[in-house]
Amino acid sequence: MIRGLHPSFRDVLARGGLVKVAGAHNALGAVLAERAGFHAVWSSSFEVSAARCLPDASLLTMTDYLEAAVHMQRAVGVPVVADCDSGFGNELNFAHLVHEYEASGITAVCVEDKLFPKMNSFVGEDQRLVDAEVFARRIAVAKQAQRGEDFLVIARTEAFIAGLGLEEALRRCHTYADAGADAVLVHSKQSTEVEVAAFLARWVRDVPVAVVPTTYPAWHAEDAHRAGAAIVIYANQGLRAQVLALRHTFGEIVRAGHTAGVESGIATLDDIFTLQGLEAWRKLAR
Amino acid sequence: MIRGLHPSFRDVLARGGLVKVAGAHNALGAVLAERAGFHAVWSSSFEVSAARCLPDASLLTMTDYLEAAVHMQRAVGVPVVADCDSGFGNELNFAHLVHEYEASGITAVCVEDKLFPKMNSFVGEDQRLVDAEVFARRIAVAKQAQRGEDFLVIARTEAFIAGLGLEEALRRCHTYADAGADAVLVHSKQSTEVEVAAFLARWVRDVPVAVVPTTYPAWHAEDAHRAGAAIVIYANQGLRAQVLALRHTFGEIVRAGHTAGVESGIATLDDIFTLQGLEAWRKLAR
Amino acid sequence: MIRGLHPSFRDVLARGGLVKVAGAHNALGAVLAERAGFHAVWSSSFEVSAARCLPDASLLTMTDYLEAAVHMQRAVGVPVVADCDSGFGNELNFAHLVHEYEASGITAVCVEDKLFPKMNSFVGEDQRLVDAEVFARRIAVAKQAQRGEDFLVIARTEAFIAGLGLEEALRRCHTYADAGADAVLVHSKQSTEVEVAAFLARWVRDVPVAVVPTTYPAWHAEDAHRAGAAIVIYANQGLRAQVLALRHTFGEIVRAGHTAGVESGIATLDDIFTLQGLEAWRKLAR
Amino acid sequence: MIRGLHPSFRDVLARGGLVKVAGAHNALGAVLAERAGFHAVWSSSFEVSAARCLPDASLLTMTDYLEAAVHMQRAVGVPVVADCDSGFGNELNFAHLVHEYEASGITAVCVEDKLFPKMNSFVGEDQRLVDAEVFARRIAVAKQAQRGEDFLVIARTEAFIAGLGLEEALRRCHTYADAGADAVLVHSKQSTEVEVAAFLARWVRDVPVAVVPTTYPAWHAEDAHRAGAAIVIYANQGLRAQVLALRHTFGEIVRAGHTAGVESGIATLDDIFTLQGLEAWRKLAR
Repeated sequence: MIRGLHPSFRDVLARGGLVKVAGAHNALGAVLAERAGFHAVWSSSFEVSAARCLPDASLLTMTDYLEAAVHMQRAVGVPVVADCDSGFGNELNFAHLVHEYEASGITAVCVEDKLFPKMNSFVGEDQRLVDAEVFARRIAVAKQAQRGEDFLVIARTEAFIAGLGLEEALRRCHTYADAGADAVLVHSKQSTEVEVAAFLARWVRDVPVAVVPTTYPAWHAEDAHRAGAAIVIYANQGLRAQVLALRHTFGEIVRAGHTAGVESGIATLDDIFTLQGLEAWRKLAR
Repeated sequence: MIRGLHPSFRDVLARGGLVKVAGAHNALGAVLAERAGFHAVWSSSFEVSAARCLPDASLLTMTDYLEAAVHMQRAVGVPVVADCDSGFGNELNFAHLVHEYEASGITAVCVEDKLFPKMNSFVGEDQRLVDAEVFARRIAVAKQAQRGEDFLVIARTEAFIAGLGLEEALRRCHTYADAGADAVLVHSKQSTEVEVAAFLARWVRDVPVAVVPTTYPAWHAEDAHRAGAAIVIYANQGLRAQVLALRHTFGEIVRAGHTAGVESGIATLDDIFTLQGLEAWRKLAR
Repeated sequence: MIRGLHPSFRDVLARGGLVKVAGAHNALGAVLAERAGFHAVWSSSFEVSAARCLPDASLLTMTDYLEAAVHMQRAVGVPVVADCDSGFGNELNFAHLVHEYEASGITAVCVEDKLFPKMNSFVGEDQRLVDAEVFARRIAVAKQAQRGEDFLVIARTEAFIAGLGLEEALRRCHTYADAGADAVLVHSKQSTEVEVAAFLARWVRDVPVAVVPTTYPAWHAEDAHRAGAAIVIYANQGLRAQVLALRHTFGEIVRAGHTAGVESGIATLDDIFTLQGLEAWRKLAR
Repeated sequence: MIRGLHPSFRDVLARGGLVKVAGAHNALGAVLAERAGFHAVWSSSFEVSAARCLPDASLLTMTDYLEAAVHMQRAVGVPVVADCDSGFGNELNFAHLVHEYEASGITAVCVEDKLFPKMNSFVGEDQRLVDAEVFARRIAVAKQAQRGEDFLVIARTEAFIAGLGLEEALRRCHTYADAGADAVLVHSKQSTEVEVAAFLARWVRDVPVAVVPTTYPAWHAEDAHRAGAAIVIYANQGLRAQVLALRHTFGEIVRAGHTAGVESGIATLDDIFTLQGLEAWRKLAR
């Protein structure tokens, strides 16, 4: 088979062990993440926005993000976890997003408790959150909106990002778990894992916790796992690697006046053909 | 201004000098090409297909390619040249593509004389071409379909790719130029520029010629220019660089269990924010 | 539940009895067809093209048609049968369309044996067909491409439309059924059902036959059923009704200078709200 | 020419006289509005949502609405005025929408002072508005975001809808005009034109006012013009006519078992072909 079936993210969680997830913004990145050994793909709003050269500030829409997530999911045999920002609005929008993502074959979404329109978590100091009870109600609506058993909703708190501290982060995630969230994600922009680890040490619910070590890169995945994390998301390193690679390659071509010098640092055409699954496709035409 | 105006590709050609074009498949790649100094961006069907992990074989549609080209054009101040494969069908499709691309703000398209559905030029030995007179008629229809003066149609011959030789390549491009093509593109998959240079040596029309040195990477742009090329397109090196970068970065994260080791090889978050134009956007909210 | 589950078209066929299908081009039309009692919705290329004011001539793309079919399927509890024209190309395109439609939740597609690009069957005299064996091979590829058991491929012959007569229509449909087609559709533009009825009288395979009585409107569905048809598709009457209604209403508003005179001939706002499912949605916000 | 050029909405306003606008949700409706004599087309969020069988409650996105508006604009020679709801967010979203709509060839947008996510104005009693000064600042940002001179921003107040009365409606529209709005739209759901007429009687700015007589259908356009309205928008009668026509036609087919009885109430195939511009397209293939 050329384009494949995939387990749900719930299935992947159920296997036990730490679930490692890599961020991507298109099918090619998703396939390379899968082949590197990641268990799932994070359809990153930050990456998808950056690929459009637009800030991660609720400018792109659910339509755009859904399209990106679907393109990724069609290409891989691991599940895509769709970053759905702050859920695109109120309870109605939460229900709508579940209808659309689930019907499109996405098995997990993540929504965060920031106000709409959001600004990327690593930007600025004035991040404002939705009231926890309002957000919990939206989570409950989202869970009621799903049709099958497999669909999974991750509730992400930005309490640390907003400077609200550990107790509020815990209170919020407990509230969201009680409202039906299948997992929680606790985000931090500290340069160490200390505040996230403190959260994990206090977390006693039977609901898995995801962490995103963007700003604390030295935290080993196994340490995060031992600390209590069930899911670790490397959310945007792929895009950031691509930017340097593109800048270097384009710069070299302009500088040298030809591409001979960059050939050793770029994939061969055959390599790309393989990623496109070309041989399997060509066989169809025979 | 955050998102900008751009000259037409015709304007860029009119400035004189060699026009250097880099391939991309999304806005981010287009912006990096622009910043590296390229004069235009090639919205590459090969790259757009590969980004979807699908072969470059007329599986994606005009709708998909147009969306990609528009996303690129919205983000850059240089013109996008849209690779339109074999034109998606017959005369009606050529007229339709001109209507749609022109109305969407794209100022140049390139159509090739391969049969629909096409297969990528670097794949296989059985490339088949449309009859030259039929293709010329389609070019004429395309030119009649445009509304403004600026829009530019590049006719690409795959005569060398199909093994038809120099005389046929010349005859075809002459026919297309006579039918109204604003430029011609002569494609080759030889490992040197010899057959393309032979074409250029025999080309006497006052219609610019584009070359695509994918398989003859050592040909210096200035040598191509002296040989008679007006446009040189580095069609897919960007994507190929991104694949190696992604594979390396994802592989390192899996191997190391953390991202500390890859930080020096990936762009900073601030670098991405700058590419997103974040500061200009944030000022709007004050 | 606001947006619903739906049986597959295969399930609907398995219930026995004549399956009545109505054409539509958007979710609203699909919902009105469902509420009128139709068992399935025909996502009509002719209607979708007409809604864009473009001829039904392979100008719109698989991307466009898939989007329309998905919008319809999301809104109804009956299956959508997606009119996929001539399959958008060769074997690769057939496999690709099955991957995309099946993964998007569509359970049945129809492909016809016309050359790409096609022209609408009711236009002109020069309809040309693909070689039957080539088309049969594409059908076989399509059937191999599906992942689940439910997906259903209808092979449509344009033999009568192309003036090739009964024997060729039968030969083609037999060939397609042997290649794996789950159903066949025999199209005719005669002003009576005579040629279609002759086909049905000669059809002995255990593969259901669909008919499309656009030009022979007086044929009663039960008579078609008794003649051997399993599926009857009223492919475009809805759109055509909408055109007269719009023309009349817009004309009256311009003529009268106000809308008081048209109020009795248009749905109330409350009627529209009900079709939008407004009450169920509003409850979510409480 | 098959697909055409169009004046800007500003050009249409500059001609003087009352500008009559009809609502539509697709290209076919837009073309029928144009042919009936309307001077512009209202790309109605209510209609576009209803065509998807979703409530008009900020569930569809800017991406969806832009696509619908562009499909309409491509098909007609009159300008499309794009209903942009409450602007999809904050100042950044307003700038983004202007970038995207203007670059896509739309010459006028309308934004309203309701909170995001909105609910349709004819639904419920708890419509809440954005602070007037906040909305005015967004209008100013929108005006700064446009690149050309032609683009026009209509500021719509929902003050009457929210029960805030005449003084507040006037204050808001004055504030928006001072912020740079090119026109204002004053919406009302009263069953007569009295409150809108009172507004017009007090309006002294040199900024045109639009009215939408959905719930006061007997107000003659010329009376509205004499009262001071420059633009009258018949926002959704077309869709509502289509619903009754579809329901009747589908019902009759089910009831009768054939379509002979509905033929006189539906457009002929030739009528549809003409709306698709078929003859002009077919000439291209000769």
